[in-house]
Amino acid sequence: MNKLEQLYEGKAKKVFKTEEPDYYLVEYKDDATAFNGEKKGSILDKGVVNNKMSALLFQMLEEKGIPTHFEKLISDREQYVKAVKILPLEVIVRNIAAGSLAKRLGLEEGVVMKETVLEFCYKDDALGDPMINDYHIYAMEFATKEQVEAIKVMSLKINELLLAFFLEHGLKLVDFKLEFGLFKGQVILADEISPDTCRLWDAETNKKMDKDRFRRDLGDVEQTYQEVLSRIQG
Amino acid sequence: MNKLEQLYEGKAKKVFKTEEPDYYLVEYKDDATAFNGEKKGSILDKGVVNNKMSALLFQMLEEKGIPTHFEKLISDREQYVKAVKILPLEVIVRNIAAGSLAKRLGLEEGVVMKETVLEFCYKDDALGDPMINDYHIYAMEFATKEQVEAIKVMSLKINELLLAFFLEHGLKLVDFKLEFGLFKGQVILADEISPDTCRLWDAETNKKMDKDRFRRDLGDVEQTYQEVLSRIQG
Ligand SMILES: Nc1ncnc2c1ncn2[C@@H]1O[C@H](COP(=O)(O)OP(=O)(O)O)[C@@H](O)[C@H]1O
Ligand SMILES: Nc1ncnc2c1ncn2[C@@H]1O[C@H](COP(=O)(O)OP(=O)(O)O)[C@@H](O)[C@H]1O
Ligand SMILES: [Mg+2]
Ligand SMILES: [Mg+2]
Repeated sequence: MNKLEQLYEGKAKKVFKTEEPDYYLVEYKDDATAFNGEKKGSILDKGVVNNKMSALLFQMLEEKGIPTHFEKLISDREQYVKAVKILPLEVIVRNIAAGSLAKRLGLEEGVVMKETVLEFCYKDDALGDPMINDYHIYAMEFATKEQVEAIKVMSLKINELLLAFFLEHGLKLVDFKLEFGLFKGQVILADEISPDTCRLWDAETNKKMDKDRFRRDLGDVEQTYQEVLSRIQG
Repeated sequence: MNKLEQLYEGKAKKVFKTEEPDYYLVEYKDDATAFNGEKKGSILDKGVVNNKMSALLFQMLEEKGIPTHFEKLISDREQYVKAVKILPLEVIVRNIAAGSLAKRLGLEEGVVMKETVLEFCYKDDALGDPMINDYHIYAMEFATKEQVEAIKVMSLKINELLLAFFLEHGLKLVDFKLEFGLFKGQVILADEISPDTCRLWDAETNKKMDKDRFRRDLGDVEQTYQEVLSRIQG
């Protein structure tokens, strides 16, 4: 396929039209941001790692029955995906307390949650992606009840699949963020799953193997991204 | 009944034991706080207004089928209530965007919500009463699924009843906060309903007739509390 005009550029990816109106080409960048854009930087070859890792995970999920936007890998930094209307929600799935959850509830980072926690945020950079609940979603018409129900069922299923998959590769899945979109009326998984959007800890040592290395200036950022990719490819 | 030793003192009320172990005496104070205790002051005779108003509203709700802690008025500032185990949740019911909701979602204060919004906060002053959702409640064991279901049903029913009641007395019910507790295993409505815990606007002029006059230094604080009480008693 051909890469036609750029539709939009986000903090981590560029989205391009293709000659097929129902399909886009996504290009993964090395740009890194944190704390709602306050911290900016770049992680060498992050775009390559995240593109390949997302492709691998979306394929695995698709095989296990989750409908996703992923179609095929085009190059080191590019993939071909279904063109969706992104729902303005970030869905956060949490197995272990960390980050904003630990802070909000006064929990020590590392506490295992007694039940899986789902959170919804309104995807709006200007408002700082505020946390919302089902009632806000319906009152603001961000999604319908059926769509929210489908998202909850899929998110919990994705969590089961990813937890098992990462553990096989020596990684604990602490939490992660998902985005969903509408393709021909159906809710499907879109965007990416990568060390940018997951918290992953080494299963033995609890070493942080994700974007927290960048957020918290822990060093070894590039090496860690490469290490995660090679683990899950192995 | 006799007022025995003080059990605890909160920001707005004192709770005393009585000779009946299942019943407490609540004394309403004039102390006023806002912004999680950052702003402190006093509103003359607020304790009298809130005691009488709560009594009147809880009686009305009880008659309409809502189980409440209210038993009887003892004096201008005192009421006799069922002794409950307060669930560590603040339930916020919103009909019109105002305060933190307007800020969080970038809405103009005064926008009518397309559906009633319920919010849950974890009642913890040190953490600033953070907003939580159902998943947090279950993972933290703040309440059971049956208790949360009962609270949602009651809160929406209370909203219907209060909306109609206040409108008959020339007031728009913008939003309000509820607390529930366990009495002999049953979830019942506890705490208070007053200008401290509701946003009430004059039905004609939208004049703020509640604690926002204190929070935002709008003047006429005492007079407004008295006016709300005399309207609903009229
Ligand atoms: N399949 C898709 N179709 C359309 N848009 C998508 C798809 N997958 C992801 N997007 C969107 O592409 C945009 C660019 O991604 P990204 O750089 O991560 O943006 P952001 O700065 O919002 O995090 C985002 O708005 C994302 O929601
Ligand atoms: N029926 C009841 N039984 C036991 N405690 C109650 C009852 N009703 C209210 N309370 C509690 O009384 C305490 C004092 O009230 P208040 O001064 O409003 O406290 P706060 O500072 O937490 O707002 C609060 O913790 C409230 O939850
Ligand atoms: Mg993104
Ligand atoms: Mg109180």
